[in-house]
Amino acid sequence: MQVDRFRDHPFLSFVDWSLRGIGQVVFQNNPLSGLIILAAVALNSWIYAAICVLGVAASTATAVILKADRAILRDGLYGFNGALVALALVAFTSEDFRSGAVPSPAMLAYLICAAAMTTMAFASITAVLAPHRIAALTMPFVLVGWLFLFAILKFDALDAGPMGKPVSPEYFTQTMPYVFSTWYRGVGTSIGQIFFQDNWITGYVILAGIAVNSRICAAMGLLGAIAGTAIAALYGGPETAVRDGLFGYNSALTAMALGGVFLVLTWRSLLYALFGAAVASWLWVSITTFLSPLGMPALTSSFVLVTWLMLLGQGAFKALVPVPPAQSTTPEENRARYLASQSS
Amino acid sequence: MQVDRFRDHPFLSFVDWSLRGIGQVVFQNNPLSGLIILAAVALNSWIYAAICVLGVAASTATAVILKADRAILRDGLYGFNGALVALALVAFTSEDFRSGAVPSPAMLAYLICAAAMTTMAFASITAVLAPHRIAALTMPFVLVGWLFLFAILKFDALDAGPMGKPVSPEYFTQTMPYVFSTWYRGVGTSIGQIFFQDNWITGYVILAGIAVNSRICAAMGLLGAIAGTAIAALYGGPETAVRDGLFGYNSALTAMALGGVFLVLTWRSLLYALFGAAVASWLWVSITTFLSPLGMPALTSSFVLVTWLMLLGQGAFKALVPVPPAQSTTPEENRARYLASQSS
Amino acid sequence: MQVDRFRDHPFLSFVDWSLRGIGQVVFQNNPLSGLIILAAVALNSWIYAAICVLGVAASTATAVILKADRAILRDGLYGFNGALVALALVAFTSEDFRSGAVPSPAMLAYLICAAAMTTMAFASITAVLAPHRIAALTMPFVLVGWLFLFAILKFDALDAGPMGKPVSPEYFTQTMPYVFSTWYRGVGTSIGQIFFQDNWITGYVILAGIAVNSRICAAMGLLGAIAGTAIAALYGGPETAVRDGLFGYNSALTAMALGGVFLVLTWRSLLYALFGAAVASWLWVSITTFLSPLGMPALTSSFVLVTWLMLLGQGAFKALVPVPPAQSTTPEENRARYLASQSS
Repeated sequence: MQVDRFRDHPFLSFVDWSLRGIGQVVFQNNPLSGLIILAAVALNSWIYAAICVLGVAASTATAVILKADRAILRDGLYGFNGALVALALVAFTSEDFRSGAVPSPAMLAYLICAAAMTTMAFASITAVLAPHRIAALTMPFVLVGWLFLFAILKFDALDAGPMGKPVSPEYFTQTMPYVFSTWYRGVGTSIGQIFFQDNWITGYVILAGIAVNSRICAAMGLLGAIAGTAIAALYGGPETAVRDGLFGYNSALTAMALGGVFLVLTWRSLLYALFGAAVASWLWVSITTFLSPLGMPALTSSFVLVTWLMLLGQGAFKALVPVPPAQSTTPEENRARYLASQSS
Repeated sequence: MQVDRFRDHPFLSFVDWSLRGIGQVVFQNNPLSGLIILAAVALNSWIYAAICVLGVAASTATAVILKADRAILRDGLYGFNGALVALALVAFTSEDFRSGAVPSPAMLAYLICAAAMTTMAFASITAVLAPHRIAALTMPFVLVGWLFLFAILKFDALDAGPMGKPVSPEYFTQTMPYVFSTWYRGVGTSIGQIFFQDNWITGYVILAGIAVNSRICAAMGLLGAIAGTAIAALYGGPETAVRDGLFGYNSALTAMALGGVFLVLTWRSLLYALFGAAVASWLWVSITTFLSPLGMPALTSSFVLVTWLMLLGQGAFKALVPVPPAQSTTPEENRARYLASQSS
Repeated sequence: MQVDRFRDHPFLSFVDWSLRGIGQVVFQNNPLSGLIILAAVALNSWIYAAICVLGVAASTATAVILKADRAILRDGLYGFNGALVALALVAFTSEDFRSGAVPSPAMLAYLICAAAMTTMAFASITAVLAPHRIAALTMPFVLVGWLFLFAILKFDALDAGPMGKPVSPEYFTQTMPYVFSTWYRGVGTSIGQIFFQDNWITGYVILAGIAVNSRICAAMGLLGAIAGTAIAALYGGPETAVRDGLFGYNSALTAMALGGVFLVLTWRSLLYALFGAAVASWLWVSITTFLSPLGMPALTSSFVLVTWLMLLGQGAFKALVPVPPAQSTTPEENRARYLASQSS
């Protein structure tokens, strides 16, 4: 295919793998998706875009140095956790969460090490999950992110910043009514928050980047963000947190994972995915509450937890058609392959 | 057998599976045991009895909808975690822990979703543990229970209640002497607390429900509760917490699991089970202390943790005779089968 | 060999296994190493030396009673976690962390049970990790240690002591300059802290005990401690914590594990091990921060976490040559075997 032009190019393959790495945050093994997402991030902040590139390059390069399996490298799978951990470290140590701040040299060394560590964590978690035929998802990022964020609070040479961004609903005390902009901004920002971008336009551009590779994924991401936001509204989540997309980003990822990527999309798995999106919204609150005494963000932990809990036991439920991670491409192709195997 | 009359009945099978689900909380695959236990709960509070039925029905129905394996459904194994999570959500959000309160519609929807989630968690944890030939125990309940309880604290539409029930020894400040009633009430309430029933008579009726199916199980449950309570007394646990059965419920479950259900009952495994019961009592305190900054109850986590730690490595110790979960029926039958295999 | 003289002796084998158990804390399957380390501990405090013997004997005896596999017993592997948990329980309940205090009878019974529990935890964790061909490391100690330490805080009959020893960098408020003694004492005490010995001379004697069996291990332990201490200095860790060896003990263990014991020592694995040592120092801070609201020490958790994360995925990286735990002897022999297999 045209999009695979540089995948094995002698010089540009690393760029291709890195762009796929950015796309893989939202399950898109496509360098063009990665490029559009990177542009969406840059639209919000050049600093974040640069940090995103640095993170994905550091973790992908670590995999190259350690002579990792080429097939996994070529899918960009060693990069997406590195991109996220680099973004998280900058986001939660910047005075202004929205735009980010240029990191100090000590911080730069620190975040490159964190990104490198996600490569080892990805290999480890993948090895542990291999017999269960489910993917590591963003767990390497969540684990390494928490561990490297906690340490920051205690080192003089690393500025923890004011942890200025409200990361839990606790911070929102005033009650504000939901208005129309709560909805369309909340849903868009939900997608943006996957990449720590507090910008609803960025969110919709990211959706466009996803749609380039898979329209089902983009639709499921949108549906998931809406479901997470609706749960927050129904159960009285604070308006400002909803508007900031905090209730929706885990739901968007969960809906994509369960609605087509790791389960063949059917009416049953659609409902299963929406149930998962609702639970991911509740559990984001739960994990945030658990971590709040430490001032630590939940990251994408509720997405990982819900998706694992709903996929690990997939063999027990005949109503679901699992897609092993190694065979999953796009929801469209996964479904076509399944239908072909049924009719033959 | 007579008790299996309705197990495959076209209409009543679901009732049979649900009653077995209630029995499976204490390892009894017997609808009559489930019925007696339900009556014991109703003796304390009609609300809790109704919630118990709702929980077990919701999680069993989820398994039916997802087309789960019929053999596991017929053993009631998809129901027991749902019953517990529904009871826990009501218990810890009711103004009066003892009698419970009728949940609001938002809460009802919430607890049905939690019960449904235990079905997926049960399938997942079972799949992960399958190669080690040990059971999921009440881990699906503990995990889903914690996650859904934490979230409650932050939603306007869900009333967290005063969390009125003392859930940790920290709450008991006054020192009271142990008297005779501390013991017989503490031991009885320990059995009751497995189902969140703060009522010692209910506890003894539950024991009778267990004895209908297995006298060894009932005896081990009683011994475990006594061991847990004795540890508390020896190590200076507060009288009121002992009286409320808080030190004994994990010990009772641990003693049943190790003393006959998952290990063939011998003198060695009897001592092993009592050691486990003692450790479960200590570790209940430990986990309670860990969770106390968050005001979260330990649920049955110390039972699960101790039992897993004492069973996962079973292959390494020739002094123990493991019973794989899929083959375990009652301690009596497990022992008879083992003796038969030895003599042949 | 001469050092194996008593390994199968009818009466002295238990002593041999116990001494190997002490050596296995730092990966040395050699009774002489164990004896020198015990002497190093005694040099600091006779109480700790006695407790160390009690712990290793209690957990080894538990394995004998449970009829554990003789090959694992003979390597001292059932003992090292028991020694550590006994030391930890005394260290964190003594008024003076440095010298320790003679435990009460209730405490003695408690720590023997904790040591016995590590035997079951070791078998369990080893069983879970077996398919991944990595070792349990000190995880049984960390897990049982945390669980049994938390419970102490709540029992009247067990004195939690003043938790006098600063266990987290938070406790150090004054800023003091680094001097030469910060370095040589900090590095030595890092080795001592592996056994809870706050004494730099003890640390260097322990290194000598390691060198008796493997010079590479001793060198890697020293390098790891230096790396951990250097990271603390670079990132502004407090002088007193550095001097007390708190930043270095996890790094020393990590460097030994990755630099020769579980990976064949090459230039690549040397760098890999030093990277791990640096990360283990950061993550010690992280875990300490996470546990600080509870006043709980990190123990050797950052060593276990980093080493597992860097070994579990070993199959994915062709740049590393793993040594399965069952085949690992000393770094020297592991390397010689690998070179022999390459040349043949």
